Amino acid sequence: MLIVQKFGGTSVGDLDRIGNVAKRIAKTKDKGNDIIVVVSAMSGETNKLIGYAEHFSKTPASQEMDMLLSSGERVTSALLAIALQDMGYDAISMSGRKAGINTDGKHTSARISHIKTDNMKKSLNEGKIIIVAGFQGITEDDNVSTLGRGGSDLSAVAIAGAMGADLCEIYTDVDGVYTTDPRIERRARKIDKISYDEMLEFASLGAKVLQNRSVEMAKKLNVNLVTRSSFNENEGTLITKEENIMEEPIVSGIALDKNQARVSLRNVKDEPGIAAKIFSKLAENSISVDMIIQNVGFDGTANLGFTVPENELENSKKIMEKLNAAENLEFDSNIAKVSVVGVGMKNHSGVAGTAFTTMADNNINIEMISTSEIKISMIVDEKYSELAVRSLHEAYSLDERN
Amino acid sequence: MLIVQKFGGTSVGDLDRIGNVAKRIAKTKDKGNDIIVVVSAMSGETNKLIGYAEHFSKTPASQEMDMLLSSGERVTSALLAIALQDMGYDAISMSGRKAGINTDGKHTSARISHIKTDNMKKSLNEGKIIIVAGFQGITEDDNVSTLGRGGSDLSAVAIAGAMGADLCEIYTDVDGVYTTDPRIERRARKIDKISYDEMLEFASLGAKVLQNRSVEMAKKLNVNLVTRSSFNENEGTLITKEENIMEEPIVSGIALDKNQARVSLRNVKDEPGIAAKIFSKLAENSISVDMIIQNVGFDGTANLGFTVPENELENSKKIMEKLNAAENLEFDSNIAKVSVVGVGMKNHSGVAGTAFTTMADNNINIEMISTSEIKISMIVDEKYSELAVRSLHEAYSLDERN
Repeated sequence: MLIVQKFGGTSVGDLDRIGNVAKRIAKTKDKGNDIIVVVSAMSGETNKLIGYAEHFSKTPASQEMDMLLSSGERVTSALLAIALQDMGYDAISMSGRKAGINTDGKHTSARISHIKTDNMKKSLNEGKIIIVAGFQGITEDDNVSTLGRGGSDLSAVAIAGAMGADLCEIYTDVDGVYTTDPRIERRARKIDKISYDEMLEFASLGAKVLQNRSVEMAKKLNVNLVTRSSFNENEGTLITKEENIMEEPIVSGIALDKNQARVSLRNVKDEPGIAAKIFSKLAENSISVDMIIQNVGFDGTANLGFTVPENELENSKKIMEKLNAAENLEFDSNIAKVSVVGVGMKNHSGVAGTAFTTMADNNINIEMISTSEIKISMIVDEKYSELAVRSLHEAYSLDERN
Repeated sequence: MLIVQKFGGTSVGDLDRIGNVAKRIAKTKDKGNDIIVVVSAMSGETNKLIGYAEHFSKTPASQEMDMLLSSGERVTSALLAIALQDMGYDAISMSGRKAGINTDGKHTSARISHIKTDNMKKSLNEGKIIIVAGFQGITEDDNVSTLGRGGSDLSAVAIAGAMGADLCEIYTDVDGVYTTDPRIERRARKIDKISYDEMLEFASLGAKVLQNRSVEMAKKLNVNLVTRSSFNENEGTLITKEENIMEEPIVSGIALDKNQARVSLRNVKDEPGIAAKIFSKLAENSISVDMIIQNVGFDGTANLGFTVPENELENSKKIMEKLNAAENLEFDSNIAKVSVVGVGMKNHSGVAGTAFTTMADNNINIEMISTSEIKISMIVDEKYSELAVRSLHEAYSLDERN
């Protein structure tokens, strides 16, 4: 098998941990696999360098930031190669450029355009373990670029796709994807397999295991993605095509996102295109609006409500006050979004009914609802949100399966 | 003018110092000059990374060491570019590869083969200040390489040569080249101009301002080299062609090297080729022998003496004891080499006489002598070596000129 293994900053956070990672790679190699490893910078390094840059400038040029920040991953890749060589394994480090990771020219948040696999194929043919510096690539102008947040995951998935790897393992400090946050519901169960689409919902609903960009790319390139812990030997969660999952449960898990805030407009002015004006103004300011509800009362007055990420609330306030689009404005950050996710819902009715009944049974008021083919999201008062998660987890019997 | 400025690890040792370096560069730019800057890693960084590598392996692969160690200079170059940009100057950082520094494949001690100047010329034409990560280049196989000790100086000199720079300034923490070590003779005077050949002698005789490799390259490429301090505005020492120096003094300075040890063989065995055997064995073990004297006594017994660097003495002992080439072996590390250097000697007699007379007047025994066209070196008892330096400094009136 050809396996891509990606180790994040915490997994390579100090020399002992790098040594442990080397042992884990060696074990995979001993089983007869070909391996490409992708590494992040040692945890803390990137922030240290950002601090250095900010000492000199509030707005450092992004091309220089890439030159600066790409050094951390190079260090880890060389150290890991040295550790493996000392254990008797033939290993070679590669910068993003050397690994053939070509990107567009958008420094500090570049997109991978294509991967030239020649160097990696050659080294694999020579039996070498390849250690790629993650998070980075090279622009058409031959300058180093970085891929932004979650960039090393992206490097790993893109390499797995380009090289036709059988598996892409993303190592973090958690065991995998859970039916819900184990800190909220201790009976939460690790999910063995999950589809790309469900994972995308989980990721965008606040689960922090993987970022959407990586899951999207895995889906596009049809990469079997595994998220697992670098600190134990537990099997992780496989994220794969829906058809690869034999028995899909109706509901896979419950997600909770407390970082939500609500903006409510009462008696919206009776102007043509007022809603479009509001949402285009927010978009201009890069504020991502999530749920929207609008209703018109018996008296003809229109009310409008929508949610934004909590850290965008202040900014949203300013914009809304300036727009002066309604008689009355209200802002509420004490809300949370509880979501029921499951591919199986597509073919089963009654899933939403169970959710609403469960909330009613617990006297939890649902303030907003939005649904997609594979999820139901509900905005509730933040103080009831954990109760909502536990109740739903039980209602769908998520702790029973094995 | 096109000026290359090189700043070593101490000069960019922390963020404040990098800020000061930026101001100095800006000042040179404001005078209307084009500037290419070459930087080292922040002091301590390279040693930290070497320590990391040694945690994993006593013999890390040199290619991986280059991947590892080349990161420090990249960080400094990006930070300095950011600092200059924030001051309103158009600056761009370049890795060794981007600056076109091509080397052979000898990792960790690569030699520069040629420099592709396209990228640098393009950026200079755009009015940019170029900040090159020193100490590094790229091999024919497209792997990063490093140039070994003093590598950033080499990068600077090679770039100055390839770009036809008017001046190559090497910034360190000392003001320039002195007639002798000011800690030994406080009347030591900074030399304004000195020829390449004299500087080569000074460098190989223990002066630590510049390494031989850089001076040799400057001589070969005819680069006007200046060594000066980054901590003050004093003019430094210009190292240039002999014909550029109008009035060459007979003696330029006195050098002292205490890191010398002597090996003495009494009653060397009467075997053909015994001396060749000794010196080839030492050469095999990479021990550089400096001075050699041999004499045959009236009774036909031969004595042989030579000097080695002090840190090679233990190794030399083992080799000599194994060779068993003489009846009697003696080792002495309490010696020092005092040298009188000056291009003017070539055309003046009596220089050596003054040296020997001075030593005799001070009752200092000269144990060995070696001379070249432009220097006289004497081995003396280490405890008299500083007295020797001061006496010679006075004898040649080195503190009088201005």
